[in-house]
Amino acid sequence: MTPDNQAKITTRDRIIDATASLIPELGWGGVTSRRVADRAGVKPGVLHYHVASMDELLRLAAVRRIRRFFKDRVDGLFILEDPGNAIEELFQGLSSVDSQNPDFRLLAESLVAANRDQELRVELVDSLAELRRTLIDLFRARGVASPGPLGVTVVAAIDGFLLQRMLDPDLDPAPLVEALRSLASPVSRSSRETGEEITHSQG
Amino acid sequence: MTPDNQAKITTRDRIIDATASLIPELGWGGVTSRRVADRAGVKPGVLHYHVASMDELLRLAAVRRIRRFFKDRVDGLFILEDPGNAIEELFQGLSSVDSQNPDFRLLAESLVAANRDQELRVELVDSLAELRRTLIDLFRARGVASPGPLGVTVVAAIDGFLLQRMLDPDLDPAPLVEALRSLASPVSRSSRETGEEITHSQG
Repeated sequence: MTPDNQAKITTRDRIIDATASLIPELGWGGVTSRRVADRAGVKPGVLHYHVASMDELLRLAAVRRIRRFFKDRVDGLFILEDPGNAIEELFQGLSSVDSQNPDFRLLAESLVAANRDQELRVELVDSLAELRRTLIDLFRARGVASPGPLGVTVVAAIDGFLLQRMLDPDLDPAPLVEALRSLASPVSRSSRETGEEITHSQG
Repeated sequence: MTPDNQAKITTRDRIIDATASLIPELGWGGVTSRRVADRAGVKPGVLHYHVASMDELLRLAAVRRIRRFFKDRVDGLFILEDPGNAIEELFQGLSSVDSQNPDFRLLAESLVAANRDQELRVELVDSLAELRRTLIDLFRARGVASPGPLGVTVVAAIDGFLLQRMLDPDLDPAPLVEALRSLASPVSRSSRETGEEITHSQG
């Protein structure tokens, strides 16, 4: 990569980051190319060298931020041996995010914008599918009896919990964790009652 | 109630219904008193006899519609004996709603609006608490081992599933139902292994 390419990528990233930070402040429809240029510290005319349209820029910015939001909360779970503890850690992490956190607003704004933007919808579906795959892999590696249904249910619970916590900053994740933890039992209770340790393939 | 009061309530209901139907069409911020009056078939000047402000009207309309949306999907579950079947019926019901259904958009718009409206936030939290109580009562009446955590988890899963289904109309509820059904086992497996029928206090 030439230094020139390097600089281009950095400017593009700055533009995308500026856009992501403006969505929660101004609302999806309130983000203009001028505001993005101001925030990114570039001339307005520069934007079209980096993205085809404001729609594309908003989409890119939102999806990148949302993917990072989930990745940051899931990556650390792979060091935990017990899948129930991984679930608890995940929801504790989500509970420690301030309910006024701009990422929450960005999630809600993206959901509304997705009603009108098919490409955004597809990208958000992809990011949820990736989150499911990651958690299903984790649960499978830990010998959970039904990793698929548990992964799907944890991701639905994450989305529901985030939505509810935007409304109620004091929402307690404990009952949710209790129920999901009982699904993460590393043995199928109907077939095995020993509670023995299951080996796992991933660390 | 005098006929005069009766007429007043009817006009108010018509105004509230008109507002609820306009939110998904125009977006929360796009609903004006003129559009509401047009849709309700009343003179614009009539609105302030019935509600204090557009903010109050939007809030009333959204919360009433959301409460009805959940009530319609939960009331029918009380005839089902098996709590696992009740969960399946609930998610089948949510899956049969067209993903372009205006109620979905109204939910998403309300979530964004709640960021700026503390009273709306409180009302939405109340409606979620009511949904939880209803389901916890149902699960308790059916002898579910941990009705509290299950009720909380089902309501988080409902919200997450609705959010995900707005993005992906083909989303399959089956894995979610499978996991939640295993939590709805009417006996605590660790304490009772007989699988006997549990009597319930509510029909």
